[in-house]
Amino acid sequence: MKSAFIIIDGLGNIPGKSPLDEIELKNINELVKNGRAGIYYSVGKGIVPGSDIAHLYIFGYNFEHYCGRGPLEALGLGIKLQKGDIAFRTNFALIEDDVVLDRRAGRIKNEYAKELEKKINEKLSIKGYEVIFKASNEHRGVLVIRGRGLSKDITDTDPGKDGLKMQKCLPKNEGAKKTAEIVNRISKQIKEILKGEKANALLLRGAGEHKDVESFEEKHGLKAEMIAGGSLYKGVARYVSIEAKDIKGATGDINSNYKEKLKAAINAKEKNDVVFIHLKAPDNYGHDGNKEGKIKALEKIDKEIIKGIMDNFEVIVLTGDHATPWQLKRHSSHPVPLIAYGETVGKDDVKHFSELHMLKGSLGILERDELIKFVKDWINKSKKLGS
Amino acid sequence: MKSAFIIIDGLGNIPGKSPLDEIELKNINELVKNGRAGIYYSVGKGIVPGSDIAHLYIFGYNFEHYCGRGPLEALGLGIKLQKGDIAFRTNFALIEDDVVLDRRAGRIKNEYAKELEKKINEKLSIKGYEVIFKASNEHRGVLVIRGRGLSKDITDTDPGKDGLKMQKCLPKNEGAKKTAEIVNRISKQIKEILKGEKANALLLRGAGEHKDVESFEEKHGLKAEMIAGGSLYKGVARYVSIEAKDIKGATGDINSNYKEKLKAAINAKEKNDVVFIHLKAPDNYGHDGNKEGKIKALEKIDKEIIKGIMDNFEVIVLTGDHATPWQLKRHSSHPVPLIAYGETVGKDDVKHFSELHMLKGSLGILERDELIKFVKDWINKSKKLGS
Repeated sequence: MKSAFIIIDGLGNIPGKSPLDEIELKNINELVKNGRAGIYYSVGKGIVPGSDIAHLYIFGYNFEHYCGRGPLEALGLGIKLQKGDIAFRTNFALIEDDVVLDRRAGRIKNEYAKELEKKINEKLSIKGYEVIFKASNEHRGVLVIRGRGLSKDITDTDPGKDGLKMQKCLPKNEGAKKTAEIVNRISKQIKEILKGEKANALLLRGAGEHKDVESFEEKHGLKAEMIAGGSLYKGVARYVSIEAKDIKGATGDINSNYKEKLKAAINAKEKNDVVFIHLKAPDNYGHDGNKEGKIKALEKIDKEIIKGIMDNFEVIVLTGDHATPWQLKRHSSHPVPLIAYGETVGKDDVKHFSELHMLKGSLGILERDELIKFVKDWINKSKKLGS
Repeated sequence: MKSAFIIIDGLGNIPGKSPLDEIELKNINELVKNGRAGIYYSVGKGIVPGSDIAHLYIFGYNFEHYCGRGPLEALGLGIKLQKGDIAFRTNFALIEDDVVLDRRAGRIKNEYAKELEKKINEKLSIKGYEVIFKASNEHRGVLVIRGRGLSKDITDTDPGKDGLKMQKCLPKNEGAKKTAEIVNRISKQIKEILKGEKANALLLRGAGEHKDVESFEEKHGLKAEMIAGGSLYKGVARYVSIEAKDIKGATGDINSNYKEKLKAAINAKEKNDVVFIHLKAPDNYGHDGNKEGKIKALEKIDKEIIKGIMDNFEVIVLTGDHATPWQLKRHSSHPVPLIAYGETVGKDDVKHFSELHMLKGSLGILERDELIKFVKDWINKSKKLGS
């Protein structure tokens, strides 16, 4: 038996004030009527999870496995990391006398960013260390430093807003002095390389150290693949050795190529026990405070993804990584709906997909790795504890 | 106040597809109507518990206290174990040139097994070590090795299926070499002792090391007795120093002598705070995929046990160790119904005994030692934490 595990990013809302109370999602409600309902708190009750942490917990890991955002983004962009690598998220910026005039360098075009990437990688050189830079979308990118004795305990060079000076990288402890010095040399070299460009500096933030973690397959005895557009989600998956292919036109927003994602999910079925499918758009609209947008994104998912999944998988789990209520424009600790559907799962009497209805469901409230453990049993892959 | 804690083995089912939805258990429904309902996950959400582990958790212990199946079976058969003893489950088998022709030696009769037991115990001799063999039912039995420096980290001699060679016992680490060597000497001697018999070998599996664990009374401040037929359940009870008498005609199946078990439970009341009553038959039928059998077993329990318990105990708890849905023919992670009944417990508005109804009960979802802690308070035996 195979399972599809659908993660709708930012799915949850303020109960009783939820867009889900106002809409009828035809296919999702079919799952609700023929399956079991509940609530899922990915990281635990009362916690406001970041997207990276939320996914790490969904996969059954916890905070001690977290390596920071930098390495996850780097993995998501296809960089093969090694244990001890230090990775940053980067912004191309426009500076003048070290004052940041525009932290996003006018949101430069991807083609231009790729030209700058090439220049940097050709010219940048730190003796004894390997430095890898990769541009991603617009001004965004990642930078990785590889070599002996590096530390993640350093400050950002990104001041976080326009009008402030680009910061000198400082060590947070004695053991990080060398790394901070290397980062400052890298910043200086890049400024020289980019002199005269309209993106003439690279700001670094969120240093993280790549760790070796037990693979998802070792941990759970389950083969899994991640279908996602956004690089962060592919990165978290790859971090725990879940395969995450790059999918044509999967963008991580409402214009994502759902046809290709659905096809990829169905293709992934044969070789895997669990196919995770990440759908980003509702979170984006939550952050924008756009209730109608969130509704439209959910309706699109219901129409273009759910039916195809129902036709192809025996066990279906649908939930979110966290809530992003449109009223709050941010992640929150509010309840996230959970549906599980399949012969081995059973059914209850909940009929409508919303926070308040789900709270009456037969799955109750699940947290952290409890959900993936249930999934394992629903697809007949659990091993008895004891005998 | 005294409590009866009824454990119906394999009680749980797939919610919404449960035999419990189809039947009216008169006495159990009396408990439901006048008590409080909930769900109990003995080992935790998403876990598929073995019977031994499930009972250990019901008693308020956890995985770190687990010693493996061998010692528990040995205790259940009345062998007094000492710390460091290594115990195995055994099968009489028929072999030829070390190839196992029949792992159960034609399910030999108990009387014949007892003859072989006598022969083995008379002749088997390993210098410096005590070896105790005990036959139980048909081909089954246990073997205990007692002496210094033994290890449980050894492999089985039982190949697990017919047609394969009886295995040499191998050490899993350096410290287990001597034990493996002793086991191989035992296997060889037994083959010589049984030469010419139609059960001419003894296969060993599931080595475990007996540990000293805190007694149930020390742990909870409660005196308890276990009323059970199956040796494993008596063994788990004895492992935590809960008395478990051998009850005439209590067999661990539907033909068990429920009259004697009920009498034993009522007799146990005076000297104890909690009387555990284990009822095995529904689990057997679950494993067989026999829905009607499971229903019949529950109806028999309802008629022959529950009424008598209601007439004699002030507080009654009824739940299961795990689910054994007839559709799956195996243990599963599905919800297990829970009822608690008594003046001090209270009542709610749940009226029918099934997974979906229980999920709406006022006890909510309880896990692990939460249940025994509530029981302790319901019989007025809890001590305040703090002041």
